[in-house]
Amino acid sequence: MTVPLNVPARSLPVPDTVSPGMQALIAAPLRAGWNTFPTTPDGWRALAEASLAAARPDVAAMAERLRVTIEPGTIDGVRVHTVTPPSIAPEDRDRLIVQIHGGCYVLLPGEAGLPEAMLIAAFGGFKVVAVDYRMPPEAYFPAALDDAMTVWKSLSSAGDARRIGLIGTSAGGALVLAMGLRAKRDGLPMPGAIASGTPMSDITKTGDSFHTNAMVDNVLVSTDGFCDAAARFYANGHDLRDPLLSPVYGDMAGFPPVILTTGTRDLLLSNTVRVHRKLRALGIVADLHVYEGQSHAHYFRDDRIPETAEAFGEIASFFRTHLAA
Amino acid sequence: MTVPLNVPARSLPVPDTVSPGMQALIAAPLRAGWNTFPTTPDGWRALAEASLAAARPDVAAMAERLRVTIEPGTIDGVRVHTVTPPSIAPEDRDRLIVQIHGGCYVLLPGEAGLPEAMLIAAFGGFKVVAVDYRMPPEAYFPAALDDAMTVWKSLSSAGDARRIGLIGTSAGGALVLAMGLRAKRDGLPMPGAIASGTPMSDITKTGDSFHTNAMVDNVLVSTDGFCDAAARFYANGHDLRDPLLSPVYGDMAGFPPVILTTGTRDLLLSNTVRVHRKLRALGIVADLHVYEGQSHAHYFRDDRIPETAEAFGEIASFFRTHLAA
Repeated sequence: MTVPLNVPARSLPVPDTVSPGMQALIAAPLRAGWNTFPTTPDGWRALAEASLAAARPDVAAMAERLRVTIEPGTIDGVRVHTVTPPSIAPEDRDRLIVQIHGGCYVLLPGEAGLPEAMLIAAFGGFKVVAVDYRMPPEAYFPAALDDAMTVWKSLSSAGDARRIGLIGTSAGGALVLAMGLRAKRDGLPMPGAIASGTPMSDITKTGDSFHTNAMVDNVLVSTDGFCDAAARFYANGHDLRDPLLSPVYGDMAGFPPVILTTGTRDLLLSNTVRVHRKLRALGIVADLHVYEGQSHAHYFRDDRIPETAEAFGEIASFFRTHLAA
Repeated sequence: MTVPLNVPARSLPVPDTVSPGMQALIAAPLRAGWNTFPTTPDGWRALAEASLAAARPDVAAMAERLRVTIEPGTIDGVRVHTVTPPSIAPEDRDRLIVQIHGGCYVLLPGEAGLPEAMLIAAFGGFKVVAVDYRMPPEAYFPAALDDAMTVWKSLSSAGDARRIGLIGTSAGGALVLAMGLRAKRDGLPMPGAIASGTPMSDITKTGDSFHTNAMVDNVLVSTDGFCDAAARFYANGHDLRDPLLSPVYGDMAGFPPVILTTGTRDLLLSNTVRVHRKLRALGIVADLHVYEGQSHAHYFRDDRIPETAEAFGEIASFFRTHLAA
């Protein structure tokens, strides 16, 4: 039963079944730095600051292309940005999306965390509150989740929580699931729907695609790379199997409808489909979308290509179907 | 844009995220004969007969375990088997499932094609008509589809076609999609729902998972193996890109709801998700289920393991939701 399958070396062509823009993302070499990471708190902090500096011009250009406005602020002391599309349909005026950014719990602070918020604002026509949660070394587990819950408590108590959707990708995809688990535990209302993209739902290196898609996914590349080291840095010695760190182990009974997004080359393909199966086993409405040839979170890397419109069109349609009006 | 990605040799452990029974299927070595195939019509015929002889005792044991009865017959000259579960709920009495078996268009004649029919009869509680279509060298493309359509024409004209669901896997998964295309072309009614499992929706060797899951899928193993040679034998010189051979290229507008099933190691993962995307782009209800660690059609290889009940539970629930009562 434990004989491993030996797979020979292979050469993977860039698929011609995707748009030229997606082909460019797939053709990119393995991400620089995927297997190097800082060894000191200051090193991690410097990397986060560098990710912000690198993202700022892209985010500004994207906001202009998508015609969204961005307002910084705080909610009960937690840093947020409110992202607003050029127009909101009457039936969506009382709806709201809360976005929790990714970046392996250590990257993409400030405006760097906003691309997904801008995309769902622009393609969905929703108002979005993006949570700029604390990250290590400023604060460790469960600080990111605490900040997200502070925002959730405030927004969900201000009106009908079923009008609010959560969206997040990667670490953010795990955090929106953990928010559901925490809301249950704390007796807070559930959101109306959750969009979890390629979630880091299991950071214990468990899941078949950690092996099958190793060195195939050109973003995360391998579970022995940057992202796992970053997740351990955030966990700060805490049990990695805690459902608030690895939500696939949580009890999702009572969850609202969930839409899951991943790609065939995604290192977290298994992390995603395992959450789908758990939800379906509980009878929860759960839609899975797997995009051809895409590695981790490729579906929101370029707002100008059709696959991005396709993925956010699906998510927006899911929110419109399941959020209370 | 066309620089291939070089993936080093790897050793894939058997995942512990699936049941022991599924672990046994995943731990099996690459299927014997995956890259050898007959070179004469008699050789293909002998192989089909051998597949029937090998399957007969398994099918009989399975029918007993699942307590289904099997009746051979014909419909307008086409060989069929009617598979009946021990009991049928009142609301399902007028519902019917038509099953089109797989086997790369050349294998699994007679009772050998019945496992999927027995599974949806047993786990779904539906009456099933299984089509034992002609295969080469008895008859070539489009004979399999012609036989399926003869049965469809007869059954769909006998009552409300929306009460009838189609199910098929692999070649059968492609045939049920081609039946939808042909029904449209011929002005016949559409079925109420279609279950297409890991369809051979593109036999032109196009699709990213033909590369990423080559030598990873222990059933089909590679697009340069048996199944592609068999499909070309069936196509008999016909253009492989014809939508009736490669339905991913067909116009699926007007299709009923479709449920698609595949696995993370499936060589046809891309063939499956590409059909999902096409359907969704047309706004058609289409549910995708991707099972952890599974290779091609692993989800119906053993009726005694939980993953089989899970997959057929999803399909049965989909039929119950979408078929007219």
